[in-house]
Amino acid sequence: MEGIVERGVKEVDYLAEERAGAQFHVHSMKIFLAGGQHEYEVSTRIANLVANDPVFAKEDRARMSRKELYKNSLKKAGHAWKIILEKGLTEEESMRMRAFIDEPNYTDLHWGMFITALKGQATEEQQHKWLRQAYKLAIIGCYAQTELGHGSNVQGLETTATFDPSTDEFVLNSPTLTSTKWWPGGLGKASTHALVYARLITDSQDYGVHAFIAQIRSLDDHIPLPNVTVGDIGVKFGNGGYNSMDNGLLRFDHVRIPRENMLMKLARVTEQGKYERSNKPRQLGYGAMVFIRQGIVAEASVYLSRAVTIAVRYSAVRRQFGGKDDKAEVQVIDYRTQQHRLFPLLATAYAYRIVGFWMKWLYADVTERLNNNDFSNLPEVHACTAGLKSITTSVTADGIEQCRKLCGGHGYLCASGLPELYAAYVPACTYEGDNTILLLQVARFLLKTLTQVASGTKPVGTAAYLGNVQHLTSVNCEVSQGKDWLNPSVLLEAFEARSARMAVGCAMHVAEAPDSELAFEELSPELVEAARAHCQLIVVSKFIEQAQKDIPGEGVKQQLEVLCNLYALSLLTTHSSDFLATGYLTGTQVFHAKDQQKALFSCVRPNAVALVDAFDHTDHYLGSALGRYDGDVYTHLYKDAWKDPLNESVVTEGYHEYLRPVLTQQLWGPTSKL
Amino acid sequence: MEGIVERGVKEVDYLAEERAGAQFHVHSMKIFLAGGQHEYEVSTRIANLVANDPVFAKEDRARMSRKELYKNSLKKAGHAWKIILEKGLTEEESMRMRAFIDEPNYTDLHWGMFITALKGQATEEQQHKWLRQAYKLAIIGCYAQTELGHGSNVQGLETTATFDPSTDEFVLNSPTLTSTKWWPGGLGKASTHALVYARLITDSQDYGVHAFIAQIRSLDDHIPLPNVTVGDIGVKFGNGGYNSMDNGLLRFDHVRIPRENMLMKLARVTEQGKYERSNKPRQLGYGAMVFIRQGIVAEASVYLSRAVTIAVRYSAVRRQFGGKDDKAEVQVIDYRTQQHRLFPLLATAYAYRIVGFWMKWLYADVTERLNNNDFSNLPEVHACTAGLKSITTSVTADGIEQCRKLCGGHGYLCASGLPELYAAYVPACTYEGDNTILLLQVARFLLKTLTQVASGTKPVGTAAYLGNVQHLTSVNCEVSQGKDWLNPSVLLEAFEARSARMAVGCAMHVAEAPDSELAFEELSPELVEAARAHCQLIVVSKFIEQAQKDIPGEGVKQQLEVLCNLYALSLLTTHSSDFLATGYLTGTQVFHAKDQQKALFSCVRPNAVALVDAFDHTDHYLGSALGRYDGDVYTHLYKDAWKDPLNESVVTEGYHEYLRPVLTQQLWGPTSKL
Repeated sequence: MEGIVERGVKEVDYLAEERAGAQFHVHSMKIFLAGGQHEYEVSTRIANLVANDPVFAKEDRARMSRKELYKNSLKKAGHAWKIILEKGLTEEESMRMRAFIDEPNYTDLHWGMFITALKGQATEEQQHKWLRQAYKLAIIGCYAQTELGHGSNVQGLETTATFDPSTDEFVLNSPTLTSTKWWPGGLGKASTHALVYARLITDSQDYGVHAFIAQIRSLDDHIPLPNVTVGDIGVKFGNGGYNSMDNGLLRFDHVRIPRENMLMKLARVTEQGKYERSNKPRQLGYGAMVFIRQGIVAEASVYLSRAVTIAVRYSAVRRQFGGKDDKAEVQVIDYRTQQHRLFPLLATAYAYRIVGFWMKWLYADVTERLNNNDFSNLPEVHACTAGLKSITTSVTADGIEQCRKLCGGHGYLCASGLPELYAAYVPACTYEGDNTILLLQVARFLLKTLTQVASGTKPVGTAAYLGNVQHLTSVNCEVSQGKDWLNPSVLLEAFEARSARMAVGCAMHVAEAPDSELAFEELSPELVEAARAHCQLIVVSKFIEQAQKDIPGEGVKQQLEVLCNLYALSLLTTHSSDFLATGYLTGTQVFHAKDQQKALFSCVRPNAVALVDAFDHTDHYLGSALGRYDGDVYTHLYKDAWKDPLNESVVTEGYHEYLRPVLTQQLWGPTSKL
Repeated sequence: MEGIVERGVKEVDYLAEERAGAQFHVHSMKIFLAGGQHEYEVSTRIANLVANDPVFAKEDRARMSRKELYKNSLKKAGHAWKIILEKGLTEEESMRMRAFIDEPNYTDLHWGMFITALKGQATEEQQHKWLRQAYKLAIIGCYAQTELGHGSNVQGLETTATFDPSTDEFVLNSPTLTSTKWWPGGLGKASTHALVYARLITDSQDYGVHAFIAQIRSLDDHIPLPNVTVGDIGVKFGNGGYNSMDNGLLRFDHVRIPRENMLMKLARVTEQGKYERSNKPRQLGYGAMVFIRQGIVAEASVYLSRAVTIAVRYSAVRRQFGGKDDKAEVQVIDYRTQQHRLFPLLATAYAYRIVGFWMKWLYADVTERLNNNDFSNLPEVHACTAGLKSITTSVTADGIEQCRKLCGGHGYLCASGLPELYAAYVPACTYEGDNTILLLQVARFLLKTLTQVASGTKPVGTAAYLGNVQHLTSVNCEVSQGKDWLNPSVLLEAFEARSARMAVGCAMHVAEAPDSELAFEELSPELVEAARAHCQLIVVSKFIEQAQKDIPGEGVKQQLEVLCNLYALSLLTTHSSDFLATGYLTGTQVFHAKDQQKALFSCVRPNAVALVDAFDHTDHYLGSALGRYDGDVYTHLYKDAWKDPLNESVVTEGYHEYLRPVLTQQLWGPTSKL
């Protein structure tokens, strides 16, 4: 590992005492959290490469105008590409680099969506033609699916691709205002090509939504092609955030593209305009979906861990109240109210990391099954990945904002890094499936599974516990004191019983109703809750599995056990009404859980700073004066303040026009412009 | 009401059908929500005055750079002042105008904090001197309390004011980095004077924190005075938001001010340096506190109602899924999951409006009592206002963000108005008392009250129900079907029983512990919950009281009843674990509550658009393409997009430097700047 700048070797370290008190081997935990020695090495090397390159500096981004920010993101993207080519970085390294640059730009969509979709939906011939160009960025592609009036409901898209056999072309058209393509990243100002989702019409028949490649800008001078209207959709939440991205709008006025620009792996249109489905199994697309969702869950853990790192370090630096008799004030992290809100999020960041590892395994497993034409567990995999995407992104978004609030007033400053972290993250709740809609899909799967169980089918994978539904709906929890809650099988049964009971409750309601679709809609708030309970069970069970394994490094396993118990008990106490309402738990048992939770806070406390150090984020990646490794918070808040544009002049711009006339009571004087 | 532009008279109205279905007299509800005919008239007149003045336009603010935004806010503040003087607006009208301008600026602090504090803490002589100047804005004042290292704990402030009898002056000094004044609005670039909170030191003794007036900038040229360091603290959350405000930093290097610049109403220092307390009752300060908190609660209702207006209107316009067989897709507002998240917030906005009215009464009552030297109910008033400030601001901040999420992807665009609404509002959770700390104060009051009850003292006001604690801790709920939940006394008892039980549970714990302060800290998460339960009870009870009164206007009373029941049942189902854990409710009773809640959703649905119309917000004030009165959402999103700075040029800035070299594989070419 030569050449890797060791982090943490700095002149001051206001958190040294905290670090000295850690009861586990931090380096081993870092390797565990990175997913292994190799991943740790790659991550550390690339993180430092980015952190030490001045082009990737990001401390000014919240102060930049939209134009400056966007131009700067183009610069960063180009610079990154140059490094990738010069150093011959691998795909893994390139992906890490894009992540550590930490500023959305057009290459995210080009690599993540345009190329991925081509691989999944283009024929080999088409891939040969387009991917060759795309791989060297000779074309820049975006993914133009959503429209101004159409988001989640892909089948409702209005853009049309009408086949004209006389010229062997499709005619792309945006018939209404609401059919305007809206949101695609990279579309607004950068992309030369778009993967356009449009209703395929041939022979006067509408065959539904299909994908087409359309060039939208000239490769010579980047000017939009004739009859193509394209632009940026405007400023988004946050100062920096996604404003470095040119989310775009796109309209076609009868734009012609060759027939072969339709992606034809799964269906094609012949020269004569005949629509033909291929015999490739549609299920193959599930592999890409699992891969993408696995990435989203892994990313949730990273984002949540960044926020938690900032909040934990700052809570250890910040002191408030209790400083009587010349003693220093109390560290904020020592307050139970702070621990109560912060430590469960720390445990959650660990939990999501672990469930992310498991989803990586799941992806490999699904890929192998698909290659063997085994589609048997796809519904379960679909529901599980949909649900995990939903709960991890929702909890992460809320958790980032919670961490910001836990930093008090200073968390509201962009210098804390937290406002931008939230603004940049929160779209994850909407893209790749709206989180509420995804949970309703999970609920549908649960009801179907229960029906199958009733007719003797054995449920698989993450739904296997539903095979045990009769036991789970009749048993009562046996906890009689706080410590009983530390037993993994007690925790597991509680979460299984809760989830099974909620699902069964909903299923009975729907089954009794005359119109089951109507009943499903009527019951949808409860179904969302039942689905959430199921997904929380998945995370708890994967965390428990992991914590029971042998993990190298002194004290590492013990820390994971503590965090696992804390994660489970925090969910249990937060959602205790679910456990109480179905009669599985008594109020006293919930009370024991709360007591035990506090005992766990005390276990986490001396390790808190080390546990966030183990996430191994560079100061560059955190981008936070509050979350600095060295804890030198106030010096850097102060320094940062002076960089504000308002501080460029001693007497503010606007003084003579707008302040002086007020102060001198000369609002109507000849020099006033008011 | 001549001259008032009637809102709603527009060419298109995509929500006309929704409005036609309303089952109550909207105009009467407007008057009710405004607080009366006079308030309605003033609000409407001033709102339109602001909306129709091009200087107050705000649609560009998210696109502005920090400097442009700030300069523009100075312009707006000056223009507003000119109008106030020219038209001779009353104080009420001026306050409404500042609110409708909807952009934080230095005058907020000048009027809201500087002048208010002078009134409360300055002697009559001092008031005569300073207020005369302040009232005509010949000086601009800010409120310099918090420091870089000190927020909630005012007693921990480090700035010193050391009396020097040799010159009859105080020497203001910032001895440490953390003593830097940090956050005061208007301080950064605008203020000429600051009300500085500093430790008073005289005769080598530290008398704790007192207030001093310090001039910080020259009245001639606005240059900071010698040995004063002052500037802006930097960019804050959101694009517009609070970035129009110059929250500032301030350091003194042994700056001398005359002795008489100490605010001496409550204590003074003599020429000889002797510290003397006045005989004025300290409790008089409570009046100002109640006034400020009353204003914060009223504002919470306004902000929440703005977000709810946007989300309800957009949910009625937006359609998604279900559009089979050539039928239009379903309006998003018709989905139970949407209603489940949105309608309780609508009810909450109404609830907070009503509790705001009650707090106005409370303020008048307290003022009268203080004038009569009756301080008997101050602890109760203090706890009640602290708690209401805490819960209303927390719920409103979360509720705004919830509304943003309910608008799907488009809610993430600044054109929706919601990102800025959230960013501008969320500091309310921190200023004027951190919300968690405030709830702990409420909890302390509850425990004390229970002790007093045990020794025979009858609790008063919002704590009166605790006099009934024995009944409340033993009774069980008698609900046996959904409709039983519509009985106001059933609801009230449930909330009283829950709050009393939680408080008693905590009190018993603390009483049993050997060290009650330690037990209090250990129990603080539960104490926060108990305090929240108490405060929710206050809101529920005030809403019930109001809904039982006669209210003019067809159907108005019925709508308030529905919203009152919905508000109470939504709280009950969300926090059902509290009711279940203490054994007051059974799971079945909670289930009935959920059922009844859905029935109430169906009552709200046909009235939803009219219920938000009744808040009577102008399109200017909402500042949202999604929340427009006419529902013409997509046209305006589209128009707004083209105003983005990135759309100023067809080929993006940065193309030649950063995109073309990538596309043409000439990263190393002589023309590349990469």
